[in-house]
Amino acid sequence: MRTVKLTIAYDGTRFVGWQRQAEGDSVQGLLEAALSRFEGSHVTVHGAGRTDAGVHAVGQVASVQLASTHDLATLIRALNAQLPGDVRILGAEAVPDSFHARFSALSKTYRYLIRAGGTVSPFERAYVWHLPEYLDLQAMSVAAEMLIGTHDFSAFRSVAGHAENGTNVRTLSRSEMRPDGPPPGVCAAGGLIAYEVTGNGFLRHMVRAIVGTLAEIGRGWREAASIPELLTSGRRADAGATAPPQGLFLVRVDYD
Amino acid sequence: MRTVKLTIAYDGTRFVGWQRQAEGDSVQGLLEAALSRFEGSHVTVHGAGRTDAGVHAVGQVASVQLASTHDLATLIRALNAQLPGDVRILGAEAVPDSFHARFSALSKTYRYLIRAGGTVSPFERAYVWHLPEYLDLQAMSVAAEMLIGTHDFSAFRSVAGHAENGTNVRTLSRSEMRPDGPPPGVCAAGGLIAYEVTGNGFLRHMVRAIVGTLAEIGRGWREAASIPELLTSGRRADAGATAPPQGLFLVRVDYD
Repeated sequence: MRTVKLTIAYDGTRFVGWQRQAEGDSVQGLLEAALSRFEGSHVTVHGAGRTDAGVHAVGQVASVQLASTHDLATLIRALNAQLPGDVRILGAEAVPDSFHARFSALSKTYRYLIRAGGTVSPFERAYVWHLPEYLDLQAMSVAAEMLIGTHDFSAFRSVAGHAENGTNVRTLSRSEMRPDGPPPGVCAAGGLIAYEVTGNGFLRHMVRAIVGTLAEIGRGWREAASIPELLTSGRRADAGATAPPQGLFLVRVDYD
Repeated sequence: MRTVKLTIAYDGTRFVGWQRQAEGDSVQGLLEAALSRFEGSHVTVHGAGRTDAGVHAVGQVASVQLASTHDLATLIRALNAQLPGDVRILGAEAVPDSFHARFSALSKTYRYLIRAGGTVSPFERAYVWHLPEYLDLQAMSVAAEMLIGTHDFSAFRSVAGHAENGTNVRTLSRSEMRPDGPPPGVCAAGGLIAYEVTGNGFLRHMVRAIVGTLAEIGRGWREAASIPELLTSGRRADAGATAPPQGLFLVRVDYD
């Protein structure tokens, strides 16, 4: 058996999410089906980030154990021939057996796209969160920076979420709101705002709860100063609503 | 009654085409339904280009006669609120009553996107024609230029098509194949080839038959010199296959 690291892009629109579910198509489920057909026996796929329903990826990473000795270019071709067009294998790489897509990851980077004002083109509607008004980008940008560092992110997570590894403390090395973010897989005409965040781990719905809160700051509904208060209080109800999934992209996962 | 010129974008993926059909959703049908609801009586929509099923538009133009006196910003908002997200009204402008979107048009510009080699990302799959091999862009570019001018385009049209206005003669002022075409509504990573063509009129499937023929030249299956032969012979069977619809965009329509 050898361990292989796969890099994967997907349009999350029609999926129940990365993770296998009782009902509906999942990216993990489709990959396991394609790999199991290739191997002739069941293959389990471990993903780096368990993206939710409707969330996209341009650089998801997964690890698999394979018995077959086909070269990796053949593996990529065979998998892409089996998979539907909204899931693509972009790369495959032999890695040490100790490699695990999730546990070996040092950091993950997400991007979230907002279209503020104007009209959402038919070609970007599945990839942005549209807000009707123009936003105060300066205030959002200041607030975004306040999230950098090691904090308890209890205020920014799924209400249904439980602490993972017993803690809601995570470290963000980058948290940046900027205009005209060139989208990772798609790109639309000007007027887009991109939030980019890199961290050593993310709670469930954490990026979307952050974006929902930053958007309220951009709309003038709350002050940037509410960010440190939320990091201290940890009260989810005091933060903004969870932003919708379709604006979120898992951009990359970094390893040693 | 006043005459209004509408500029429209749509993702053609799920439509039977621009034109109303007995079955299925058409862009014209959706626009007429939305406008008729706004007006309270039936409104007929005249489009500049009758795009086929699966063909997209970033700058389709339509003309309508309206009795209501609402300002045009209100009209745009009302229509976009009624229309599904894959059809968007981008602009509305009062025009002289003599204006007709199709008959007043001086020229139309189409763009066709080809992904040559590599992998088609999930985010561009509905907007490009994927060819597995790299193409001879130089030969395609030379061949594309040979189409500029006034010619009988009988070799480049739908087999089922009949001559419109009794003639298959059309004039192309631009016919250009170039690398890395920045797509009109969406945009994908490098490696794209764009064919851009402007003409005073187009036969049914004309752009797609041209692209199918240019692709055969790019693949080395035929010589660029076959273009003047096809313009002379007018034999459809001697030209290349019709390229698939999803790579085609109606980019703009020009008037006086």
